[in-house]
Amino acid sequence: MERNVRYGAANTKYDPPPETDQSIMRITIDVKLDYTLSEEETVLLTLEAAQTDGQTVLEAGLEVNAVDQHRITGESGVGGRVCAVVTGGKLNLRYHASVQVSRDDTVLEQLAQMPLESLPPQVLTYLRPSRFCQSDLFTPFVQRQFGHLDGGAKIAAMRDWVASGLAYVIGSSNAATTAIDTFVAREGVCRDFTHLLCSFARAAGIPARYTSVYGADVQPPDFHAVAQVWLDGDWHIVDATGMGRAGALVVIACGRDAADVAFMETTWNATPVVQNIRVIQA
Amino acid sequence: MERNVRYGAANTKYDPPPETDQSIMRITIDVKLDYTLSEEETVLLTLEAAQTDGQTVLEAGLEVNAVDQHRITGESGVGGRVCAVVTGGKLNLRYHASVQVSRDDTVLEQLAQMPLESLPPQVLTYLRPSRFCQSDLFTPFVQRQFGHLDGGAKIAAMRDWVASGLAYVIGSSNAATTAIDTFVAREGVCRDFTHLLCSFARAAGIPARYTSVYGADVQPPDFHAVAQVWLDGDWHIVDATGMGRAGALVVIACGRDAADVAFMETTWNATPVVQNIRVIQA
Amino acid sequence: MERNVRYGAANTKYDPPPETDQSIMRITIDVKLDYTLSEEETVLLTLEAAQTDGQTVLEAGLEVNAVDQHRITGESGVGGRVCAVVTGGKLNLRYHASVQVSRDDTVLEQLAQMPLESLPPQVLTYLRPSRFCQSDLFTPFVQRQFGHLDGGAKIAAMRDWVASGLAYVIGSSNAATTAIDTFVAREGVCRDFTHLLCSFARAAGIPARYTSVYGADVQPPDFHAVAQVWLDGDWHIVDATGMGRAGALVVIACGRDAADVAFMETTWNATPVVQNIRVIQA
Amino acid sequence: MERNVRYGAANTKYDPPPETDQSIMRITIDVKLDYTLSEEETVLLTLEAAQTDGQTVLEAGLEVNAVDQHRITGESGVGGRVCAVVTGGKLNLRYHASVQVSRDDTVLEQLAQMPLESLPPQVLTYLRPSRFCQSDLFTPFVQRQFGHLDGGAKIAAMRDWVASGLAYVIGSSNAATTAIDTFVAREGVCRDFTHLLCSFARAAGIPARYTSVYGADVQPPDFHAVAQVWLDGDWHIVDATGMGRAGALVVIACGRDAADVAFMETTWNATPVVQNIRVIQA
Repeated sequence: MERNVRYGAANTKYDPPPETDQSIMRITIDVKLDYTLSEEETVLLTLEAAQTDGQTVLEAGLEVNAVDQHRITGESGVGGRVCAVVTGGKLNLRYHASVQVSRDDTVLEQLAQMPLESLPPQVLTYLRPSRFCQSDLFTPFVQRQFGHLDGGAKIAAMRDWVASGLAYVIGSSNAATTAIDTFVAREGVCRDFTHLLCSFARAAGIPARYTSVYGADVQPPDFHAVAQVWLDGDWHIVDATGMGRAGALVVIACGRDAADVAFMETTWNATPVVQNIRVIQA
Repeated sequence: MERNVRYGAANTKYDPPPETDQSIMRITIDVKLDYTLSEEETVLLTLEAAQTDGQTVLEAGLEVNAVDQHRITGESGVGGRVCAVVTGGKLNLRYHASVQVSRDDTVLEQLAQMPLESLPPQVLTYLRPSRFCQSDLFTPFVQRQFGHLDGGAKIAAMRDWVASGLAYVIGSSNAATTAIDTFVAREGVCRDFTHLLCSFARAAGIPARYTSVYGADVQPPDFHAVAQVWLDGDWHIVDATGMGRAGALVVIACGRDAADVAFMETTWNATPVVQNIRVIQA
Repeated sequence: MERNVRYGAANTKYDPPPETDQSIMRITIDVKLDYTLSEEETVLLTLEAAQTDGQTVLEAGLEVNAVDQHRITGESGVGGRVCAVVTGGKLNLRYHASVQVSRDDTVLEQLAQMPLESLPPQVLTYLRPSRFCQSDLFTPFVQRQFGHLDGGAKIAAMRDWVASGLAYVIGSSNAATTAIDTFVAREGVCRDFTHLLCSFARAAGIPARYTSVYGADVQPPDFHAVAQVWLDGDWHIVDATGMGRAGALVVIACGRDAADVAFMETTWNATPVVQNIRVIQA
Repeated sequence: MERNVRYGAANTKYDPPPETDQSIMRITIDVKLDYTLSEEETVLLTLEAAQTDGQTVLEAGLEVNAVDQHRITGESGVGGRVCAVVTGGKLNLRYHASVQVSRDDTVLEQLAQMPLESLPPQVLTYLRPSRFCQSDLFTPFVQRQFGHLDGGAKIAAMRDWVASGLAYVIGSSNAATTAIDTFVAREGVCRDFTHLLCSFARAAGIPARYTSVYGADVQPPDFHAVAQVWLDGDWHIVDATGMGRAGALVVIACGRDAADVAFMETTWNATPVVQNIRVIQA
């Protein structure tokens, strides 16, 4: 019989963050995932709200029917994963969190680009092309289209180009769709908008990373993806879809692209039975 | 007038490593690079021998005509970069090193695959697909071709498949060639052999990273690339070209693929005037 | 109100072919297609059994609710299309045919390759790479894998390689999947098997064309695709899936690849309501 | 010993065309090609000026050191090939022609698009995607970018988009570069400009074919490539590079893309020794 093991760090109460002048929003997340798996399966789960800049996890709980599990720090330093060993052919996962977000929308135009020699080592990796962001191939286009701009103004122009140049069409892309594919097809979902924006930024020498989030603003309120760009010595959230305000997003994890932050990874096929995500702005 | 700045850590003498039963080899590296650059250029250089397992840098010196430079730790934890600001439109670089290598050739067949739940966090990133290693697309092929094997025996079979399936043809690939391209074209150089082997390994759940090296054995003795795979709790060198023995290689740096460890990166075009690399086994 | 126009050539009785020693099979085809279209749409239909070598259409009828239609000869000289103008947002199509097939299975090994200078002009086009058959990229692989063989024996080896190397997985490919994609993924459907075989053949200098057929033998008995290769001065059917015997196939049309012989083409989206194809061996 | 065989149709004198109001230009072509080949090689040559609309070959001569040769009609109905069997490891080719061209520059804006049902059968093939023109993938972009325009005005806008959006960079593409690659890289040569324009046109339902020409206007005056689009019941030349006026072009052959009209095709590698093309406006 399969044991129901509670996740260790669950149901912790955190102290609320100090009050500031920033707009503060409380966001509640409820996730219910039931999957059919192979008989014994190790599952990587990257779906917990991160303790990171601009957001405080007030309370959170993760329950997985795992026989063994441990937490893994995320490679980016933001967020983490849970590695869970699940037997019996079924995954039953419940996650809930209450997160206080105090993050202003970025005014990109005021932010300066950092010269290559000023980039911290851990940021350099987000200049490189990656599986879904072939930034090296976009260099001539980016130079022609955005070469007259700099720093935050350049990112703003890229974001606007992506937002107006692509149609948001659910079902128009799949797990293998790259930024090149999206650039040609001119349609995609949040994943694809973000891949294209990250590719453009990196092609211009601006570090950009893919960030998985919960979006209270997006339709439907669900898993969402945005970019973070490195300007003026810090990461700044940019949503190329124009759907999510930074203040209504809860960051989960960061990576080079979608391949690094899939919310669930399994070795064998996993078939969803129930997949129910609710993100509510309190 | 441009200043000739010596690199800080240069010309250091290191203590020799303790003697062991392992075969010990001393390798001397001499690099001369002269390039034409734009008037002011920041150059990332990833060409110094790393202080890492199996090799000891006995003595090394790097001279670059930089007006400013600093060292950056490599993202993988192995090796590092020098970030150099060069003015006057010319790069003049001299690097020499003497390295003692004591590293046995890996007997892959004895090494066990680690289950996903036992992989350390910093190793997980080398399971992901990357710009030039689209491991996600190779899953069905790898399952069909190598699915009956495990761990080191599986890697050995992959190495042999790549070594016998590809022709080593200088000039057959370029900076944009991916593992998919190589899988179809069935030809390439060390970069491409390594990309394909890394892709296969990751598709089978075995972490694999791209490692830039100096090869005393390879023809010509020059920059070379090999894979490192994570088996039995450690990284092991595998050369899919069959050219370089682990004991005759000096590791420079590691990354997801060639994009992470280019020996020189510049923002604008750099035109080689002199490019002279000598790797001699003493 | 929409008129129901009968197709002119429909319901013709043809004389039966003379009897021979060959195995003779009678195949009955029934097609029912109902689609939702835009208000006015021109539809190209390539789904009638062809009057061509090895098969005789004994009786056939096509009904389409078109306000205007005409027949177009196929570019390959085999089969044809019906160009139908349909109004009212709905396509209702019925096609039935009775075809006598007398075609032996090809014994490939006995067939010789024709030298380039002996190929008739109209055959040359099937040496070229095409949208889904990038034969130019397969030259090194084909030379290494099949270079020791010639003519029909070479094609037989290619067919066997494809049949055993690919898994037949419904849903594993889509309308944009190319032979390169299939070569990597090692799975596909009849369309993909045929694209890969045609690519291999062309890469070896053997003309190969994509042939859409009705298959009585295949599961389910439905639209199917096979290759035709030019050997010994004639076209020969080769089914890389191994599912359909030449004697149980009814040829519809030929082209460079699937792009040339789609059974229905519309300018705007067409949504299937009913798609019912029955192919019965009498 | 190798025989020097003169090509049969060479050195013919043609009657001059009747005088008209059109601007008339006389163009002289001189081609000298020396190649190293394998010992016995069949070579397809597609480099003779075509007898076709808007141009009259006044005089022409082709000499090849072939032991056997014959002419093949081009698949498009325009131009032709010479199939030559060459022994002794060397190709020596001389071609000269004098061509009278009387062809006005197309005023695209006056030309109407033909509805699908009015297209002649032999034109349909130029609606299909091809190896280097993946028109099927450009449909959403073309609809968004050019959907408000029609017929010749649409083609003019596409030509202007390509001419201003791409940089003409010699060496930026190779024999495997596709329209998708060019769309991303935003650079190429005449071949790539033409592939992209043909892809756009086909994606909009306008037949477009790739046409190899001699250009007296282009720099250097040499082999060149332009598109022909089917509007108002005829083919019209469009040069997406903006370099060649229709009246200064001599058409050689037409195809779906560059794969169909390479000026020389061999089975094995051919190494150029001399490649000298002169196109002079008399």
